[in-house]
Amino acid sequence: MSASPIQGYLDDLLARFRSLDDGQVADYIPELGLADPNWFGICIATQDGFVYEAGDCRQPFTIQSISKPLTYGLALEAHGEATVLQKIGVEPSGDAFNAISLHPGTGAPRNPLINAGAIAACGLMPGTTVEDKTAHILDAFSRYAGRALDIDERVYGSESATGHRNRAIGWMLRNFDILAEEPTPTLETYFRQCSIRVTCRDLALMGATLANGGVNPVTRMRAVDQAQVGRVLSVMATCGMYDFSGEWLFHTGLPAKSGVGGGILAVQPGRIGIAVFSPRLDAQGNSVRGIAVCRELATGLDLHLLSPAQREAPVVRVSANGQGAASRRRRPVKQAERLYQEGERLRLLHLQGALGFASIEPLVRELCALPATAAAVVLNLRSVLGIDPAAARLLAQTQAALARCDTALLFCEATAWREQLVAAHVAPDSFHPDDDFALEHAENLVLGEAATSAQHPRASLAQCELFQALAPEEVQHLESLLEARRYAPGESIITAGDASDELFVITAGTATASLPGPGRRVRLDVFTAGMAFGEVAFLDRSPRSADVEALGEVECRVLSRGAFERMGAEAPRLQAHLLERLALGIAGRLRQANRELAALK
Amino acid sequence: MSASPIQGYLDDLLARFRSLDDGQVADYIPELGLADPNWFGICIATQDGFVYEAGDCRQPFTIQSISKPLTYGLALEAHGEATVLQKIGVEPSGDAFNAISLHPGTGAPRNPLINAGAIAACGLMPGTTVEDKTAHILDAFSRYAGRALDIDERVYGSESATGHRNRAIGWMLRNFDILAEEPTPTLETYFRQCSIRVTCRDLALMGATLANGGVNPVTRMRAVDQAQVGRVLSVMATCGMYDFSGEWLFHTGLPAKSGVGGGILAVQPGRIGIAVFSPRLDAQGNSVRGIAVCRELATGLDLHLLSPAQREAPVVRVSANGQGAASRRRRPVKQAERLYQEGERLRLLHLQGALGFASIEPLVRELCALPATAAAVVLNLRSVLGIDPAAARLLAQTQAALARCDTALLFCEATAWREQLVAAHVAPDSFHPDDDFALEHAENLVLGEAATSAQHPRASLAQCELFQALAPEEVQHLESLLEARRYAPGESIITAGDASDELFVITAGTATASLPGPGRRVRLDVFTAGMAFGEVAFLDRSPRSADVEALGEVECRVLSRGAFERMGAEAPRLQAHLLERLALGIAGRLRQANRELAALK
Repeated sequence: MSASPIQGYLDDLLARFRSLDDGQVADYIPELGLADPNWFGICIATQDGFVYEAGDCRQPFTIQSISKPLTYGLALEAHGEATVLQKIGVEPSGDAFNAISLHPGTGAPRNPLINAGAIAACGLMPGTTVEDKTAHILDAFSRYAGRALDIDERVYGSESATGHRNRAIGWMLRNFDILAEEPTPTLETYFRQCSIRVTCRDLALMGATLANGGVNPVTRMRAVDQAQVGRVLSVMATCGMYDFSGEWLFHTGLPAKSGVGGGILAVQPGRIGIAVFSPRLDAQGNSVRGIAVCRELATGLDLHLLSPAQREAPVVRVSANGQGAASRRRRPVKQAERLYQEGERLRLLHLQGALGFASIEPLVRELCALPATAAAVVLNLRSVLGIDPAAARLLAQTQAALARCDTALLFCEATAWREQLVAAHVAPDSFHPDDDFALEHAENLVLGEAATSAQHPRASLAQCELFQALAPEEVQHLESLLEARRYAPGESIITAGDASDELFVITAGTATASLPGPGRRVRLDVFTAGMAFGEVAFLDRSPRSADVEALGEVECRVLSRGAFERMGAEAPRLQAHLLERLALGIAGRLRQANRELAALK
Repeated sequence: MSASPIQGYLDDLLARFRSLDDGQVADYIPELGLADPNWFGICIATQDGFVYEAGDCRQPFTIQSISKPLTYGLALEAHGEATVLQKIGVEPSGDAFNAISLHPGTGAPRNPLINAGAIAACGLMPGTTVEDKTAHILDAFSRYAGRALDIDERVYGSESATGHRNRAIGWMLRNFDILAEEPTPTLETYFRQCSIRVTCRDLALMGATLANGGVNPVTRMRAVDQAQVGRVLSVMATCGMYDFSGEWLFHTGLPAKSGVGGGILAVQPGRIGIAVFSPRLDAQGNSVRGIAVCRELATGLDLHLLSPAQREAPVVRVSANGQGAASRRRRPVKQAERLYQEGERLRLLHLQGALGFASIEPLVRELCALPATAAAVVLNLRSVLGIDPAAARLLAQTQAALARCDTALLFCEATAWREQLVAAHVAPDSFHPDDDFALEHAENLVLGEAATSAQHPRASLAQCELFQALAPEEVQHLESLLEARRYAPGESIITAGDASDELFVITAGTATASLPGPGRRVRLDVFTAGMAFGEVAFLDRSPRSADVEALGEVECRVLSRGAFERMGAEAPRLQAHLLERLALGIAGRLRQANRELAALK
């Protein structure tokens, strides 16, 4: 365990900016004036729910205007974009936070982050009573924070007792029919919403919830529809800091919202939530230290959303052709050679990260430029983190375009994305469990008819790979050393962990080697007539490393260690021949493994 | 070659939106009124310079207000942020494009994208004459577009002849000393800048240049300092579409700028440039089809910058411990076993993509949580696309924190980043050429003193891996079959491509196998006394796959194919023994390769 330099950085920031004591604690609401001006907290919450805290991150204070974008999101959720846009604009007003700023024609507030817009959003909360509306808001905010929040009743009392200007705004909104009913319940809801008690840590997690598409990264509970998150962050980007919004975005590049309680919540979309808490405010009503620390964080951690350092990682993590990627099905030598020679007709691509238009566009371009001879492309989606609807549609359209050139686009390890991709019109029969099965299918497309026709169902001893080029009398000798065995379909031939005292040669049928994997068995090898198996463990006497079972009826010839030793004494040249063929077979597998390694690196 | 679905999508958009014929061609500048209202082009340029074009993408028109953010970037470049912010604000004004909107106290225009701000930016262009100022702008814009642009003199004449309101603004700016000189040269520069001729394709590439950090993705020439790009895009995000900016960002989530010539340029930072051209304008002076198509593109391609679908790809591409990752140095069996057993003390991580705070934070957390027994972590940077300054500092600080726990943080394939990392205080001696050398160093840290002490300089035949457990008379027989050879330091022992008729056993010294790679040789293997080499090719008679040379003085014993065949006739049991040892050695390498494969997958 080493000390985290990130924690160290936040501790340093806290020490550095503690000396900044410009600004005044808000006192236009008397209860707010009781805050300790020295309170100071800095907090970062990551998209996987890890929280860095420095200073007073557990001190409760009231959320105030930071509530506004969140309630706006609830209004969008409840009524849809069109209705809400009619009642509340999304243009920065360039005015101060308490300016009335209504559209001259319609009376709609210019945006949801000035008081008028926020009160209009409260009017759109479900329910008719203060209790119902407030409960709806408190429940949602609690899901944002990941814990049950409550209301500071003293601050609420103070807000309600002094909120005359807001009452005037409420009646103006009623006058223009932006509020459909008598405004008192809406106004009291607004005062209660502003008095919800949070900590700096809560705000950072609320920010991380927005960064995470609306799902709290700790509780995994949804706080707001994913569809609203971009809209909420958009109004924060253009209007979040009142008449300081342009300069804020210019310097930090982060959507954010401040409150007169001293909190600032900022979001790096898709990445992190940030909160700073310090009650001393500047003339625009923003926390002085909060502004300074956020600007330092944005610069020090390179968070500026409009800075182009944030380049996309390449969507293709691994790219191999048929020489560097092969299914576990061991092919007869001729087929294996053909697959190697025609390796360029098959491609395996492991994709990664979030598939969006810009990240997937180079892949679409590459696939559309494939030569007409290409038989199949396998896309492995295991490392994919998300697929934008646009990317899903592009994959479906690319599959259709390739199909017109007789090139198959196959998917594997795509369980998490199958439903979405099929809904976007990816062919349902193009999904395979893993590389192995997808590559087997792709190899069969390369081989065409040869894939099945060359499979001989039965091999004589002399046809087996291990015993080729033996003299007839040597084959006869072998016969005397090998035990014949038959296995019924599904019967176990080898069990992982057992001692390795036998070497198997398969003379009829098919057997598969596999291991239990997460969720399902992972196929390691498919053996057909003429092939040997179990030879590596037989040689180095290690325990069996996998299970082998008969796929259908299987006939084997088995060389026991005793028989192998007898062979060494009775027929050393036969044994040397066998060992040379064994070494050659293993060397071939080593070459293939090295090709796969080179392809993966 | 298949038809690109992306091209198909743009073609469809063009057909769909052609029927939208609301709006009027601008005619307040008479020459603009000559534009064909049916012109329509849609263009996307990618960060690697690929351009998708649909419709009239090669039709020249004047850039008009799209020039404003670019000239603002030049002003920042020439005078620095502090000076420019004093003269031009960055707050959205909420006003129309031709509003004067000066700050009541200072007279500074509210932002650089209203006419007043753009004229003030022209005043900050280097030079005193119209010619000098215009040449500076034209040169920069040409670098943005990647081709020499020119000025439409007829439009310029028309602009200058009718620009009375702008002259009024110029004199107001002179009045407030925002313009330091008589405004005429600045105003004529402004008129000429607005009359620069571009195509829709040019605009898309200009956007891609901004998306690409200021470097044109086709010509690779820099158009603007990277430091200004985020600032330029910030003012586009908050003020780019006049009093429609809030709604624009709400719907598209993209920084953008429109011009009355009918162009709109939009940028997905770090990703793509977009341009739409259609001369019919709405009441706010924005292209009607341009707005509609951009909104459709942002939705259809999921480009919204504040939408959280854009999650970061994991920065760790491959993670392996000492069991799944090993240097090419073949270790004596005891050392190899210890490295395997203590595999958890060593980690190899391949990083990828852009390293920024949010992407690298989970890695820093993981490294700081390593147990105190960890000896070394190797970070391979080959797939890294960029390192933010914050990420470089975090890597240096993490290295220092780990060093205090005696854990080494090593870097490899980091040539492109070495200078930046060392400047951020990463230790200069922690860089290695590739995985192989870094892992060798890391393995030596795991082994401690044993790394060098166990290396025996000389092996008798009976000590060689291939000949262990032989009877003394068999060793004597071997002696008669093996040829002794000596090699001087640097001498070639095996040349890639040669026939493989010999098997080598090294009895003294060290030899390395390598292949020419891009830039430098790639080491494949290091052999020390007691080890065999060249055995796989000897067995399967394939040509030599690598060069082997003596590192210092080397003594070998060589088994020719003739001697091997003689051995088969004279001493078949000895040959069987040798083949069994060979097969075992190859099987061990296959197991290691399979472990590495599993680690990489």
